[in-house]
Amino acid sequence: MASSTTLKLSLFSVLTVLCFQVVVSVIQHPLDPLTKEEFLSVQTIVHNKYPTSKNKVAFHYIGLDDPDKDLVRRYESLPTLVNIPRKSFVIAIINGQSHEILINLRSKTITSDNVHKGYGFPILSVEEQGVAIELPLKYPPFIASIKKRGLNISEVVCSTFSMGWFGEEENIRTVRVDCFMKESSVNIYVRPISGLTIVVDLGTLKIVEYHDREIETVPTAEKTEYQVSKQSPPFGPKQHSLTIHQPQGPGFQINGNSVSWANWKFHIGFDVRAGIVISLASIYDLEKHKSRHVLYKGYISELFVPYQDPTEEFYFKTFFDSGEFGFGLSTVSLIPNRDCPSNAKFIDVYIHSDDGTPSLLKNAICVFEQYGNIMWRHTETGIPDEYIEESRTEVNLIVRTVVTVGNYDNVLDWEFKTSGSIKPSIALSGILEIKGTNIKHNDEIKEDIHGKLVSANSIGVYHDHFYMYYLDLDIDGTHNSFEKTSLKTVRITDGSSKRKSYWTTETQTAKTESDAKITIGYAPAELVVVNPNLKTAVGNHFGYRLIPAIPAHPLLSLDDYPQIRGAFTNYNVWVTPYNRTEKWAGGLYVDHSRGDDTLAVWTQQNRNIENQDIVLWHVVGIHHVPAQEDFPIMPLLTTSFELRPTNFFERNPVLNTLSPPDVAWPGCPK
Amino acid sequence: MASSTTLKLSLFSVLTVLCFQVVVSVIQHPLDPLTKEEFLSVQTIVHNKYPTSKNKVAFHYIGLDDPDKDLVRRYESLPTLVNIPRKSFVIAIINGQSHEILINLRSKTITSDNVHKGYGFPILSVEEQGVAIELPLKYPPFIASIKKRGLNISEVVCSTFSMGWFGEEENIRTVRVDCFMKESSVNIYVRPISGLTIVVDLGTLKIVEYHDREIETVPTAEKTEYQVSKQSPPFGPKQHSLTIHQPQGPGFQINGNSVSWANWKFHIGFDVRAGIVISLASIYDLEKHKSRHVLYKGYISELFVPYQDPTEEFYFKTFFDSGEFGFGLSTVSLIPNRDCPSNAKFIDVYIHSDDGTPSLLKNAICVFEQYGNIMWRHTETGIPDEYIEESRTEVNLIVRTVVTVGNYDNVLDWEFKTSGSIKPSIALSGILEIKGTNIKHNDEIKEDIHGKLVSANSIGVYHDHFYMYYLDLDIDGTHNSFEKTSLKTVRITDGSSKRKSYWTTETQTAKTESDAKITIGYAPAELVVVNPNLKTAVGNHFGYRLIPAIPAHPLLSLDDYPQIRGAFTNYNVWVTPYNRTEKWAGGLYVDHSRGDDTLAVWTQQNRNIENQDIVLWHVVGIHHVPAQEDFPIMPLLTTSFELRPTNFFERNPVLNTLSPPDVAWPGCPK
Repeated sequence: MASSTTLKLSLFSVLTVLCFQVVVSVIQHPLDPLTKEEFLSVQTIVHNKYPTSKNKVAFHYIGLDDPDKDLVRRYESLPTLVNIPRKSFVIAIINGQSHEILINLRSKTITSDNVHKGYGFPILSVEEQGVAIELPLKYPPFIASIKKRGLNISEVVCSTFSMGWFGEEENIRTVRVDCFMKESSVNIYVRPISGLTIVVDLGTLKIVEYHDREIETVPTAEKTEYQVSKQSPPFGPKQHSLTIHQPQGPGFQINGNSVSWANWKFHIGFDVRAGIVISLASIYDLEKHKSRHVLYKGYISELFVPYQDPTEEFYFKTFFDSGEFGFGLSTVSLIPNRDCPSNAKFIDVYIHSDDGTPSLLKNAICVFEQYGNIMWRHTETGIPDEYIEESRTEVNLIVRTVVTVGNYDNVLDWEFKTSGSIKPSIALSGILEIKGTNIKHNDEIKEDIHGKLVSANSIGVYHDHFYMYYLDLDIDGTHNSFEKTSLKTVRITDGSSKRKSYWTTETQTAKTESDAKITIGYAPAELVVVNPNLKTAVGNHFGYRLIPAIPAHPLLSLDDYPQIRGAFTNYNVWVTPYNRTEKWAGGLYVDHSRGDDTLAVWTQQNRNIENQDIVLWHVVGIHHVPAQEDFPIMPLLTTSFELRPTNFFERNPVLNTLSPPDVAWPGCPK
Repeated sequence: MASSTTLKLSLFSVLTVLCFQVVVSVIQHPLDPLTKEEFLSVQTIVHNKYPTSKNKVAFHYIGLDDPDKDLVRRYESLPTLVNIPRKSFVIAIINGQSHEILINLRSKTITSDNVHKGYGFPILSVEEQGVAIELPLKYPPFIASIKKRGLNISEVVCSTFSMGWFGEEENIRTVRVDCFMKESSVNIYVRPISGLTIVVDLGTLKIVEYHDREIETVPTAEKTEYQVSKQSPPFGPKQHSLTIHQPQGPGFQINGNSVSWANWKFHIGFDVRAGIVISLASIYDLEKHKSRHVLYKGYISELFVPYQDPTEEFYFKTFFDSGEFGFGLSTVSLIPNRDCPSNAKFIDVYIHSDDGTPSLLKNAICVFEQYGNIMWRHTETGIPDEYIEESRTEVNLIVRTVVTVGNYDNVLDWEFKTSGSIKPSIALSGILEIKGTNIKHNDEIKEDIHGKLVSANSIGVYHDHFYMYYLDLDIDGTHNSFEKTSLKTVRITDGSSKRKSYWTTETQTAKTESDAKITIGYAPAELVVVNPNLKTAVGNHFGYRLIPAIPAHPLLSLDDYPQIRGAFTNYNVWVTPYNRTEKWAGGLYVDHSRGDDTLAVWTQQNRNIENQDIVLWHVVGIHHVPAQEDFPIMPLLTTSFELRPTNFFERNPVLNTLSPPDVAWPGCPK
């Protein structure tokens, strides 16, 4: 009897452990964003060490600490057997100091707790910004300034703007506050109250600097409203409905945060700083009968938005929207049938407040299939007495999120194609940052206004948008190289051909980081991440090529403060050896940073990047000279790039892909 | 009684005339492509002058002679009162000479008939190419060459390739013929029979040169087939259906060849050389309550495809697909539900054979609406206690055609957006031109093979695609200027700002043609066609900006023969004063041309282009280093540019545009 009981007990234990394992591996992927429970754990653990009764504690970043890449790869192959402890990396400002706290979520213990000694500060919290914007409204000099301008203070709303660093010695966590009028229109950014300098110390949450410099007209609220409920006829033009239906349902499956669609599998993560993170993207190769790695991780590492007005009003506006405000914290809820089509599925995520409390952000991400048009086609009329035509249709998959930092809305898509291409795209919308002016007409302009007059009393200030994409491509394995294939003209001088010239290619493999700092556009070149250890049957290395959009190059001097902080834009393409700590192109602490921890600094080490785990960094840039059509809200301006398989497959990977079945609307003739 | 009869008679006459006018103006637009009857008229008229019993007559181009632009504009305003005589311009080779014949289709008379004295020849006719490709099959040396190679001559199919000009003195209309194997697979272009030089004189239709230079392996037919009926499992990945339905029907109306959609109106023309032509594109301005001119005429003027292999096999392959083969003649029938979605409408056109007989080309063009995603959006979280979100959805209109010249399929779209943008795009698909080789693996490569080994025995030869877009923008009128707004760095040295630098703009108006020859990418600039006589309320000139794709610049020497002929690619952007005769960037006669009639030559006149009717010429280029994925048929590679309103409107023109109504699938929950 005893042995039977022991047996049953053992069996029970084994089953319990197995069940636990199975349950754990079905429920949670090691790259899944932090759950509500995990956020609460972090909050409790940190508060246990630093009770709020005696300590001032504010959580400025709570995120999943990246698990070790090797472990994740092993998990990918054997999910039920590899168990990766979940950890959280936290940046909290505790009693005025930035603490980097690593927490083991399984043992619920603090693994390390180090105080940041260098320059710069973490992401500004939503809550402290909410307090800061209220300060002017009770500040007597501000009240007087408002009265002087004949404005109604109950209709004033303020907003925070990061200040950057301009050579000052002291390292104080300040923020600028600019104010706007909100009467008659919610479009506050086009109704600035100009001429005021308000600086708030975020540590003390007090105004520490105030100047009323000059008075400029506040632009009118007329015709600035964009809410349909507040707009009046005539409306137009009329758009006919175009409804999408998938009778077989969507072609993708989402299990937790893991997506499988057509020949792709990938994981959708989320982080309060990075926003959406695409990981473990693999494509199934029909010919090789296996899934092959393409992208280990991809996300936007930073967004640098420098304005080009050097006056007191605007000079400091040189934003780093991810490091200063958090792409994740700035992600908005997507509106069904508007931001995403009717066949989309939505994913909710958790973000956190500065006291560590998690809150649900609904519809943070949507996933949908889109009619992709033609996949490939050919009509052959060259064979006598035959007419051959073949055209295959494709459906693409889009993963979308929208990040709104103050005025601008960034619609960020990751598009997947069955042909193996990944096409990240950016579409800009939202509101221009307007500088108020007394000028109503171009004829009144006497000197450079550093922008375009987009409406009476409204200057759309010149600026740039530079998006830095972190792309850890693992082309069929981690050991990759970066190849630059230059296209070179060859002149024929020996009369060996009737041609006098042709172009050919010259491929160089980047050995160290300095070999891979690329300014796109000056000389034609193909940029390919290859696996130098694996080849196709005819001997080409497997690769994925970067096909960039038309580039924008930075125009600030290299030694200008914002450009030092944003030095990661000095080149359009960089390659680094994979380093788990190198995540944020502008540095870990971006607010008031001094540029000592950027991608440009790391790469000065000139490390080896040949035949090892490398990361591609790609800057997508837009120079923005505002136009009146951008006012009072901007129709989408789109740019995109492509990661395209290049000798990754033995041949066209969708040669044997059938068009989706034709479907008729019920009752309608086909 | 008499006066009553006279009155009735007069009334009857007036009514008849009016009815005739009404009937005429409803039926035919002055820019409509030639009708079947008009083609037959031309055929009859020319044959009357040159009876085929005594003359050798071949029609190499029959097209609508462009009506006078002023007349067309007047017609646009008063269609029932302006009557424009239809004329046809014909290039016929009559008894060995190229005749330019202008025919008045109303009076059915020849207005002029001039023999072309210069270099170059017209578009090759489909019929003569059909005869040329048969010649080798009966030519004893060729039969011997085939036998020597162990090939089956009944499985050989040949194709014609224009020869260009390489400095030879004589002006003979020859064409190269290359041959391919077609057994087991219709994919002939990847199965070339290499090492043969066959030259046919198109005048005599005889082989005038023949060399058997060397034997290279003909690549295998295995895995080259692309017809679904000939392919075998496994098929994959599986694509789920995505059906589109428009319960209100499409939002566009097509009357004849005139399209009205949302706030756009335009005319779709067709020409055997140009292919699709977009004309008279105007947009309705909700604020101004009127239709405003944007694009008078847009089409692809030439496509230059130079291959980069200087050997005997390939050196001459420097094609001008429009001028040598005719974009219109090369337009293929679109496949419903494959090339165009299920909600598309199709337009048929007429083309002609070399004896002037018209034939119907069904489904030459399709027009469809496409889900455009987000038009503009904003989420406002900056106003305390308020959460504002607004996102409007848009539907775009696409006009599509596919031009297949031999191996390559060019999917050409004209996309119209309610926000005022026109976005032409090119998507490449079809088959690579393969050069056969004995080489099976990269390791066997000893010298430059001028391409990439894409399969055993198959070199994908390096080449370029340069599309020249003719864009006669008339921004709210014909008198326009071209403005180049350079973005320039300004260094601050006087300590007036904490910034050390910023960028600002410097706008130059092009005065003469040499001011507007632009190489995109070397220095940042905005390129805008403006109306210098009209301004917005705040003083900005109405304009449309060109937002180009990443450019490709030519890499051949400027003095190389193909580059002389294709000198219109020396810059990405050119501007000329409108000139009715300047239509074809490579010249009127491109086959064997010597480059004396190109855009580059015309612009040497350095004519005035300020404040007058100007035309924008834009080269969209792709350098193509083939990859294995392009083989045996190429997944679409897309590039596009945008013509975007820039201070054309007083403000965002779709601010008051409502999203299309939501529609649920019958029986499906919303």
